[in-house]
Amino acid sequence: MRAAWHNPERQIQALYITQQALKDFQSDLAVKGVKRPPPTIIDKKELDRATQGAVHQGIALACSELPETFLSDILIRTSSHDKSVLLMLDQVTDPHNVGAIIRSACAFGACGIIVQTRHAPNFEGVLAKTSVGALEYIPIIHETNLSRALETLQEHGWFTIGLDERGEKTISQIDNHQKVVLVLGAEGSGLRRNVAEHCDQLVRLPTSNTMPSLNVSNAAAVSLYAICG
Amino acid sequence: MRAAWHNPERQIQALYITQQALKDFQSDLAVKGVKRPPPTIIDKKELDRATQGAVHQGIALACSELPETFLSDILIRTSSHDKSVLLMLDQVTDPHNVGAIIRSACAFGACGIIVQTRHAPNFEGVLAKTSVGALEYIPIIHETNLSRALETLQEHGWFTIGLDERGEKTISQIDNHQKVVLVLGAEGSGLRRNVAEHCDQLVRLPTSNTMPSLNVSNAAAVSLYAICG
Repeated sequence: MRAAWHNPERQIQALYITQQALKDFQSDLAVKGVKRPPPTIIDKKELDRATQGAVHQGIALACSELPETFLSDILIRTSSHDKSVLLMLDQVTDPHNVGAIIRSACAFGACGIIVQTRHAPNFEGVLAKTSVGALEYIPIIHETNLSRALETLQEHGWFTIGLDERGEKTISQIDNHQKVVLVLGAEGSGLRRNVAEHCDQLVRLPTSNTMPSLNVSNAAAVSLYAICG
Repeated sequence: MRAAWHNPERQIQALYITQQALKDFQSDLAVKGVKRPPPTIIDKKELDRATQGAVHQGIALACSELPETFLSDILIRTSSHDKSVLLMLDQVTDPHNVGAIIRSACAFGACGIIVQTRHAPNFEGVLAKTSVGALEYIPIIHETNLSRALETLQEHGWFTIGLDERGEKTISQIDNHQKVVLVLGAEGSGLRRNVAEHCDQLVRLPTSNTMPSLNVSNAAAVSLYAICG
């Protein structure tokens, strides 16, 4: 919530807040360079009713959705960057995992996360909570066909890396590339065949035979660290 | 379940299995070098009743608990190792996170996880499921006083590293040490003061200002990779 309030991309119509919560939020009221409405003091019971029982900590925003980001936006934004990393999630939908992945993507400076339109998770509730505000900073790009998106990225000079236990090299052994797409599949099933075939390289993590795979959000964090850290 | 069956440390009195599940389990029946009981075929309804509604996939084991591991066991086991890494969790209790941490610890070859007796999570249910069998391989050491455990480890030549945003160096900048304890605190509160003071070094992950911290299981995976990978 605090992250949404401070995000200049987000238009905010109203801030409803209890007298109690206002004390903690006082130092956040002014946002540099952005016009924000004055707080509307509201009774806790009224807020409970308005938020229909959702957990609210005495504060609620009426705000616009973030503008949608397209792959073409990413291509333009990163065209002059020295180093860019994009994540692609191939049917990863568990909200705890996706939320943590968004948080790690933000922590390691990734420029966006591509998901498949048909298998996108719900970017609210548990997922938003697990992302602890990172959803405000990491654009989510919805693509109908992930293989086609990979082709487009390759045409624009991106190197596409699929995380896969069958990879010959480990992630620390790959060459340095200016623009990298890291592709992660769902736990268990892994990358779908067509998506894996659209990766320039399949790489694995340096894991033991006893436990060759990690939880998908852990795998994402390690890969991001290996490439950006 | 499969991991428990294959774990030679685990004594198993009986294997209850449905006719249907037995087909998939056939190749697992014999465990090299370990005596295992023959399967007892059981009706699905009977199994439902016996497992009191827990998810069972047609199979259940009657087995002993794993023998408890003490810090002294770890000191003995690792005395001749070239490189050893231990994890210590300072009041990290979320079962999804701890389960994923146990899995990563197993994947990166850590030799155990130390938890505080009073704030240990429940090593069953969601946690066991999230660890996908790694609990069979990673000893959990319960200690009453984590600071004292760190002192003991230091006396035996272990270098103790606390993960903390205030760390001057990042984890990739620390010197190579033969025996390392990685200490992670709970999300939000982080390491408790006394535990942090017992660390030889506080290190941070190379994260952005926008999102300085990771989900604790992601932080654990990245640190393990940075040290063991």
